[in-house]
Amino acid sequence: MSKARVLIVTADEFEDTELICPMNRLLEEGCTVDVASLAKGMVTGKKGYKVEVDLTVEELAKDPSEIYDLLLLPGGKAPAKLRQNNRVLEIARSFDRVDKPIAAICHGPQILISAGLLKGKRATSYSSVAPELKEADALYEDTEVVVDGKYVFSRHPQDIPAFSREIMRQIEALT
Amino acid sequence: MSKARVLIVTADEFEDTELICPMNRLLEEGCTVDVASLAKGMVTGKKGYKVEVDLTVEELAKDPSEIYDLLLLPGGKAPAKLRQNNRVLEIARSFDRVDKPIAAICHGPQILISAGLLKGKRATSYSSVAPELKEADALYEDTEVVVDGKYVFSRHPQDIPAFSREIMRQIEALT
Repeated sequence: MSKARVLIVTADEFEDTELICPMNRLLEEGCTVDVASLAKGMVTGKKGYKVEVDLTVEELAKDPSEIYDLLLLPGGKAPAKLRQNNRVLEIARSFDRVDKPIAAICHGPQILISAGLLKGKRATSYSSVAPELKEADALYEDTEVVVDGKYVFSRHPQDIPAFSREIMRQIEALT
Repeated sequence: MSKARVLIVTADEFEDTELICPMNRLLEEGCTVDVASLAKGMVTGKKGYKVEVDLTVEELAKDPSEIYDLLLLPGGKAPAKLRQNNRVLEIARSFDRVDKPIAAICHGPQILISAGLLKGKRATSYSSVAPELKEADALYEDTEVVVDGKYVFSRHPQDIPAFSREIMRQIEALT
């Protein structure tokens, strides 16, 4: 399903390659990718790359999982801000509720912890997030990619090849 | 041919995503990727990403096209330095001589101009390199990706999805 629609939720200080490489990979495949953030304009990564915001989280449909096929949560310092926003947490829950894929890397899983979605799930994250994952009763694994049902997790930028491979498998599995 | 071997030739001040995104894409597919540069250690991109150098251009086999299936030349300021190195130009000629794929983006084609390989070829590059391409009797096209035989060219980071798509087509076409 190469015409899949993907939603990226991010903010300033995202980890540049964790957003840009999977986004390029999805565009290569012909997917539509929308970037949502807390405000319009551009978001700027930790290394200085700028990415255009397509719409704010407030502008998104109430149930974005009705429109999008996969939710992608890059890491960096963005998730620490995003997890404090109730609308962002509702977006994540919208995908979980209908069992649509959610892919989170590095600090991205922090949003899923705050949304209360990881209890009992196998997961990974940036090493400093591991204690939080365990406290949230997730089953932490220190490996390049963890797939639990429709959830895909990776640890850091070096894992992007494995992370993208599993994202593309989720895309191919869409009906 | 997912076990293809790819050679990236670069140096400090490479354009970070033009190296990292295609490299991640190739690793996702199971390819082996070696990074060659002018000296051992790490190369640092314009935005600060560091990539490990696997071997120097002097350490490479005389005809690297006997070992590698595709040559990838990212952009940034690296090609301006690399084009002054005769060994780098010989590496490019080695792939051309046996008609193996060469993919160059942004300022990467500068190396191919100095190697005298682009006369009569359809090509693209970063806009500021276009006059040089034309002087070298290449047929410049202002489009996201140009494929002429085994050559793949793109203009800038926004073209990476199309650039990677055509690199993967070259990899798939390897016998």
